[in-house]
Amino acid sequence: MASTASPMASQLRSSFASSSTKRLAVPKHINIGAPFRISPAKRSFIIKAVQIPREMEAIEEYPMNGGHGIYSYAKNSYRQGQAINAVKELIKEEITEKLDISKFPSSDTFRIVDMGCSAGPNTFFAVQNVLEAVEKKYQCEGRDHCRLPEFQVFFNDHSSNDFNTLFTSLPPNKNYYVAGVPGSFHVRLFPEASLHIVISSYAIQWISRIPKELVDKSSPAWNKGRTYYAHAGAETIKAYADQFAKDMDSFFHFRAQEVVPGGMVLLTIPGGRWDGSSDYQILSNTLYDLLESTIVDLAKKGIISEEKLDSFNVPQYFPSPQEMEAAVKRNGCFSIERIECLHDEKKQANPKEARVFSSHMRAGLEFLLSEHFGHEIMDELFDLFTKKIEECEVFDMGVAFKLLVVLKRK
Amino acid sequence: MASTASPMASQLRSSFASSSTKRLAVPKHINIGAPFRISPAKRSFIIKAVQIPREMEAIEEYPMNGGHGIYSYAKNSYRQGQAINAVKELIKEEITEKLDISKFPSSDTFRIVDMGCSAGPNTFFAVQNVLEAVEKKYQCEGRDHCRLPEFQVFFNDHSSNDFNTLFTSLPPNKNYYVAGVPGSFHVRLFPEASLHIVISSYAIQWISRIPKELVDKSSPAWNKGRTYYAHAGAETIKAYADQFAKDMDSFFHFRAQEVVPGGMVLLTIPGGRWDGSSDYQILSNTLYDLLESTIVDLAKKGIISEEKLDSFNVPQYFPSPQEMEAAVKRNGCFSIERIECLHDEKKQANPKEARVFSSHMRAGLEFLLSEHFGHEIMDELFDLFTKKIEECEVFDMGVAFKLLVVLKRK
Repeated sequence: MASTASPMASQLRSSFASSSTKRLAVPKHINIGAPFRISPAKRSFIIKAVQIPREMEAIEEYPMNGGHGIYSYAKNSYRQGQAINAVKELIKEEITEKLDISKFPSSDTFRIVDMGCSAGPNTFFAVQNVLEAVEKKYQCEGRDHCRLPEFQVFFNDHSSNDFNTLFTSLPPNKNYYVAGVPGSFHVRLFPEASLHIVISSYAIQWISRIPKELVDKSSPAWNKGRTYYAHAGAETIKAYADQFAKDMDSFFHFRAQEVVPGGMVLLTIPGGRWDGSSDYQILSNTLYDLLESTIVDLAKKGIISEEKLDSFNVPQYFPSPQEMEAAVKRNGCFSIERIECLHDEKKQANPKEARVFSSHMRAGLEFLLSEHFGHEIMDELFDLFTKKIEECEVFDMGVAFKLLVVLKRK
Repeated sequence: MASTASPMASQLRSSFASSSTKRLAVPKHINIGAPFRISPAKRSFIIKAVQIPREMEAIEEYPMNGGHGIYSYAKNSYRQGQAINAVKELIKEEITEKLDISKFPSSDTFRIVDMGCSAGPNTFFAVQNVLEAVEKKYQCEGRDHCRLPEFQVFFNDHSSNDFNTLFTSLPPNKNYYVAGVPGSFHVRLFPEASLHIVISSYAIQWISRIPKELVDKSSPAWNKGRTYYAHAGAETIKAYADQFAKDMDSFFHFRAQEVVPGGMVLLTIPGGRWDGSSDYQILSNTLYDLLESTIVDLAKKGIISEEKLDSFNVPQYFPSPQEMEAAVKRNGCFSIERIECLHDEKKQANPKEARVFSSHMRAGLEFLLSEHFGHEIMDELFDLFTKKIEECEVFDMGVAFKLLVVLKRK
């Protein structure tokens, strides 16, 4: 009988260099993509531990509000929908121009994934947009008598995402096969070279965990009295930026394994630290500043404790185009087709918009906030937050940036 | 620009013969697998309607109880688990002996699906069993220096299945990539030739819809005063059997498209109309007889109306080995490797088992029953049902049959 290595092991062998050898039991919680090296051995494994496996550190889950309720993400994500719509034509153009279908065997199913899809209509719009571009590409350069490939679309988000709502709201006239993939996009999720297009809209700004130093009293990065980085000290900003950089390293590392040569990765991210300056007045940062100010007010009133304030940090980071470019280059497996920071025109303030912004933030953050501060203060917190947005004259407080990243697998 | 046919259309073109031509708008509710024929035409489609599309008839959904509550399927499916365990070695043996891995390109991801997986541990046991057999097969006949393929496992059930519970209870040490596929197995669910093994345990006995004649007062198959077929008239039994036969035709039709040559389909079904006789004393039928008797008693008491009784029918059918064999042969795409009816040894009655049987039936049928009769009578209904099982001396009322069907794609 021949000895074997598991797929988990074989994929890892190619991904990580060995440094030391130790006979270990396979840990029960080992997961796909864990950076162990397993050498073939009859009825036993020799496992070479090479580094602290990134994906064995706890990856935090921040599910959007599920269902169809008043504060559900499905009902409070039209701003993200607007952002997807705003880059729609650009994404179509990039796919039509740059997707390298000549590299894909004609018999292949064409596989698309939306990473961090949540539940709601946006993911279906985004996927439909990609499908239309790919269909156009095949129409223009089709082979085999112009037969379109079959499409399989994977909807990915954390296991705690509301897949039930997602699956019961699938478009009835879709012309693709559907699958939901539970799990963090900071680990391997798909077989080798099995994806043709990866999209992710307003998801990768969520960092995989809050850096320990942010809640470490002895660290210069301790984020005391704050819940965010925009107006925090340099060490705090660095801790956020470093975590985002690590997350992008794992994101691109695993996507490089999953995406076929010639395939594409298209990312849309809110905000963006323009020119690397932390205090540039951008909408996303300002909203988190206002949320911070709301939480600080509740702490001052004694509704939440100082300790609870100090130990809460919003797990999002809005990178600059330069940071994204650096992450792609560190990885080395993708060519940069486009990295662009788009921004909206300034509009007149509309008082109704304050409640919309507030509900959108609630749909995305309520799980986190109520886990930390307790469900019972959510109404008070978001009422106060809405008032703060109203007082700020919402559209004068910053410009909404969208960072578009278009990559091709070499 | 070249003209194109959608994947939906191209798959259909190969599946159905054309009979008449009519220019139609594409219906909005058209779904993958709908039997239209689309001819290439510039900027428009000519659609040839060929027959009433089977999958555009309503397919009914009967979700098991979700979550982890007292009557959840996850907590009330150990009998199905025992059945899976009972055929475990047989299934391993069949895969090890008959799976034709020489036909699969060595670079392929090995794809397995559990159809009708529900939520709970059984699906993971069943999948693990298959994986172990496939790994053994590759160990014995491996190529490419015995490298195992990567495994991707699809968990399929209706959209209304509790995928959230399924995804949050995935085994932590799995060595496969996971995806959930929502949708009825009576339609196309996967791209062409993309699956290597299809398993289904205790699922395909659910018929896709209640035949209309069962609730049609003018039909000889009208199932008045009854909710099941075991002791009903010949026309009623025929209506059930015909629906099951139609369902198997669509099941095998679509699986034939999805499974690669050399791939396998392994089905386990409870009960079984042994020798085609409807009144053979088998456990599954007897349980449904007792449930029927419970519902009839509630109607006699005036708790439910006569109309409600007459319009309810349990959507399950337990086929004989001969019926399964006939369905496979009608399809023609699979070779029959094994069709076998296994039965348990008779055991001593155990009063505790009555409540177990009752809870298992509740986990599987509560959705249906409460939709039809109202949630408020469920406790009373199942209390009465439990008493009826106790009075019957449960293990004397019939033998639990398991029908095992093992097929290989030609």
